[in-house]
Amino acid sequence: MITLQQIEEARRALAPVIRQTDLIEATGLSSGFETYIKAENLQRTGSFKIRGAFNKISKLTPEEKKRGVIACSAGNHAQGVALGASEHGIRSIVCLPDGAPISKIEATKHYGGEVELVSGVYDDAYARARQLAEEQGYVFVHPFDDPDVIAGQGTIGLEILDQIDEVDAIIVPVGGGGLISGIACAVKAIRPECKIYGVQAAGAPSMVEALRNNERKALPSVSTIADGIAVKMPGRITYEICKSCVDRFVTVTDDEISAAVLTLLERQKVVAEGAGAASVAAALYAGLPLAGRKVVCVVSGGNIDVTILSRVISRGLAAQGRLSEITVELDDRPGQLEVVAKIVAEQGANIVSVYHDRSDPETRLNAVYLRMMLETRNEAHRAGIEQELLAQGFKLHGRRNYTIIKEA
Amino acid sequence: MITLQQIEEARRALAPVIRQTDLIEATGLSSGFETYIKAENLQRTGSFKIRGAFNKISKLTPEEKKRGVIACSAGNHAQGVALGASEHGIRSIVCLPDGAPISKIEATKHYGGEVELVSGVYDDAYARARQLAEEQGYVFVHPFDDPDVIAGQGTIGLEILDQIDEVDAIIVPVGGGGLISGIACAVKAIRPECKIYGVQAAGAPSMVEALRNNERKALPSVSTIADGIAVKMPGRITYEICKSCVDRFVTVTDDEISAAVLTLLERQKVVAEGAGAASVAAALYAGLPLAGRKVVCVVSGGNIDVTILSRVISRGLAAQGRLSEITVELDDRPGQLEVVAKIVAEQGANIVSVYHDRSDPETRLNAVYLRMMLETRNEAHRAGIEQELLAQGFKLHGRRNYTIIKEA
Repeated sequence: MITLQQIEEARRALAPVIRQTDLIEATGLSSGFETYIKAENLQRTGSFKIRGAFNKISKLTPEEKKRGVIACSAGNHAQGVALGASEHGIRSIVCLPDGAPISKIEATKHYGGEVELVSGVYDDAYARARQLAEEQGYVFVHPFDDPDVIAGQGTIGLEILDQIDEVDAIIVPVGGGGLISGIACAVKAIRPECKIYGVQAAGAPSMVEALRNNERKALPSVSTIADGIAVKMPGRITYEICKSCVDRFVTVTDDEISAAVLTLLERQKVVAEGAGAASVAAALYAGLPLAGRKVVCVVSGGNIDVTILSRVISRGLAAQGRLSEITVELDDRPGQLEVVAKIVAEQGANIVSVYHDRSDPETRLNAVYLRMMLETRNEAHRAGIEQELLAQGFKLHGRRNYTIIKEA
Repeated sequence: MITLQQIEEARRALAPVIRQTDLIEATGLSSGFETYIKAENLQRTGSFKIRGAFNKISKLTPEEKKRGVIACSAGNHAQGVALGASEHGIRSIVCLPDGAPISKIEATKHYGGEVELVSGVYDDAYARARQLAEEQGYVFVHPFDDPDVIAGQGTIGLEILDQIDEVDAIIVPVGGGGLISGIACAVKAIRPECKIYGVQAAGAPSMVEALRNNERKALPSVSTIADGIAVKMPGRITYEICKSCVDRFVTVTDDEISAAVLTLLERQKVVAEGAGAASVAAALYAGLPLAGRKVVCVVSGGNIDVTILSRVISRGLAAQGRLSEITVELDDRPGQLEVVAKIVAEQGANIVSVYHDRSDPETRLNAVYLRMMLETRNEAHRAGIEQELLAQGFKLHGRRNYTIIKEA
């Protein structure tokens, strides 16, 4: 367990370096309860990770600082350690798998980290970092399973309690569990009646599984767009804290996460990465008992590649029924396209793109497929268009690879 | 001129309704000067407009309030007036041209406004609003040319001075001039040495032209992605204030605005609409004398349609040299595509899309065009790839419809 005193000390250490990020009332985000977002995506380095990393480094002895620190990460932790070390004027080495995105490598260097690219995947980079720490004497900074790191993340809990009276619930994204452990220790010490809810991606439910089975075990694989919480194995310390201090865990799907990223973008005008938006996805879609409550969603980070963001936007629109692909089989005679276009227009949908290829060898010789991407209001709107097309004798084809989601 | 007292009164009136938006230090946004963004995109309704609208309505007599208010707008002002009226518990009617985006209509209704769709363009909706005000006795709320509206926007200036010491310059987007007039009156009264710079879109330079010609005149047309500042004619009051209180005006292009939207999205994790990002575009690209200064960019709003945002992202990437279209003419013999793909890979660029159509009737019979969209690091990277393709005997085709921009 991390004590309130440890977290308060961390807060003092962090004061000159981090931003006290805004707690933003998100009116219109949800109905039935008051929602606030704790905008750690607006934190320096674009995520909360600087808090834990800086606090850890500030606890090192002068001799340890002189040796420098090392970390392994393909994401936010890398940037947090690099900036945390630079702010202390010490060296940092960050091992990254060689397939890491250019943007993350550049960001790590930008904050003063020395990047070592390791051929292979995360586990290879991790092994190399451990080896270098051993050989060269660098201090290894764990991304979550370290009391000083957890205490640093816990400062977010203190800030929330300062920024809002009588909060009823805080929802926190969970990868290895450092963030929620820190927040839970801080909040339960001061306001034990406040619920702490953890959310994991459905494709990476390591903590959920560990708590269910009463055993920490590595997942064989993880798969989610929320790469910031795609962790195979919970920490030893974080597991114990989650077991005793977190009220409930839920999971959310990639479609729900995409819809939440889109909602934050459109309604709150902030960019969240998948992991960061998972808390909002949980508030909206996971059926937590929030009615009438004051709820804070910790938006933990905003480091998402713009090309991925574009894809997440499309997927979020699809999941909200606002972007609909409809494939119509047309008989190969004049005027058919016109009829379809008329139906779509009458139903008030906008055509985003049309693909019409009669040289496709999969098509019947006397038919063509017309694949349309439509801007629709919602799922009911789309269904109405399909019904009208069917009523006028057209055959519809194709399948969706996403799920339509509704608020809980 | 608007007095400090008027603006301070407005601030008291607004206190229970608006958010004091965060002033965020934007480290890494620019080199050579300290940049802060005043995040009015995170304001209620997604823009600063609620400030002026609410303040105007709070000054109405009980009898006027009973009659209700009317406004004409296709954008942020509509939402500001609707929410401002709702917060006072009075009626608001908003005239919108019937081509206005569904999202804006829905948002206006969401905040309690009664929407009247007028067939035609903005000017038609404006005429209709004026007519209804006349006939029905509604109080017309002007989007900018009204002392109470200007005083409301001026509260942003007071907040900035509270939030940061010794600011040297404030850059403000300018459409009709309400926002900059309010800020200039507030700031020059308290800290006259602080420069106030106005920025307009190059495609809608109404205030710039008026000041240059010493005459307010309507532009024949305006064209910019920054629809929030696409105003044909400056206000009478705002023109006078700009003339006496604003230190300098500059314009920025749509490509510069797109690049600034992208930069805010990637580095600051916030969504800005074109108008909102114009201030950042001016700081980065307009050659203002900012070296060594503390500069605040007012990011005035974040209401941008997600589909337009996707397009702005692409354009911003192109303008920064990070998304490059290259069209190669291939002789129609086997292995050509492979050679091109190899060159691209060796140069370290990622292929985003490839379009290869030999049925295009514009193509020579024995040649095909290969159109590639590439992810590149910057303009130099793109040039290197083109050079290598030319060196290996390929012909390149096509033209760009965007400009590569560099920081001032």
